Amino acid sequence: MSTIFTKIIDGEIPCHKVAETDSHIAFLDINPIAEGHTLVVTKKEVDYFFDLSDELMQSTMAVSRHIAKAIDKALNPLRTGVIVQGLEVPHAHVHLIPLYKENQVMALGHNVSVTDERMIELKENIAAEVSL
Amino acid sequence: MSTIFTKIIDGEIPCHKVAETDSHIAFLDINPIAEGHTLVVTKKEVDYFFDLSDELMQSTMAVSRHIAKAIDKALNPLRTGVIVQGLEVPHAHVHLIPLYKENQVMALGHNVSVTDERMIELKENIAAEVSL
Repeated sequence: MSTIFTKIIDGEIPCHKVAETDSHIAFLDINPIAEGHTLVVTKKEVDYFFDLSDELMQSTMAVSRHIAKAIDKALNPLRTGVIVQGLEVPHAHVHLIPLYKENQVMALGHNVSVTDERMIELKENIAAEVSL
Repeated sequence: MSTIFTKIIDGEIPCHKVAETDSHIAFLDINPIAEGHTLVVTKKEVDYFFDLSDELMQSTMAVSRHIAKAIDKALNPLRTGVIVQGLEVPHAHVHLIPLYKENQVMALGHNVSVTDERMIELKENIAAEVSL
């Protein structure tokens, strides 16, 4: 059975896409823990992040860096953090979390409320800084 | 001024070292959020993870994968997660967090208590699985 991320990649489920390459897709997390919280997902279904091939690990981090720098330009956080947890969806992905203040809680499940209008605005602002 | 990590690399501050290469050192976090919580630190002082060179980013992830697999063998968690936050020490590093149960809280500052004896045992068990 396809993971929810494969359904998003296949266009069966909509997303706020900020970038796409042959090997990856990046879109806003619908349960954000900060404004601009973005997922970078491999198109290939691999469950465990550390089971990615060397090549796919490298491209995942290269795309993640590119998107993190786009987030930094678009939203001006202190920096952008990373979480790879992977117990929620069995499909390797990187969470990119803009950190706006020193004491910000960076933990999945510690959600913030973002309106649909703001999600669209965030997506457009980040996508505008991407040149993949 | 040297960061606390550079002082550890230079041997001025002791650590529970699990591995070392020409470019990286890995040691147990003294404020663990899970048993076996390990830091992978670049010997070169770069503040922001996403400012690492492509080469150093790749080697950081290759070393992180190697240590994560050693943690998985030594401690048998469900898997090992990743946090890169970087607001506490201005020296790029990856937190490797063994995840022992589905609902484990994965957030820096959410510390667990580990005795000195157990830290030594954890370090030895992980180091025994490393072949860098």
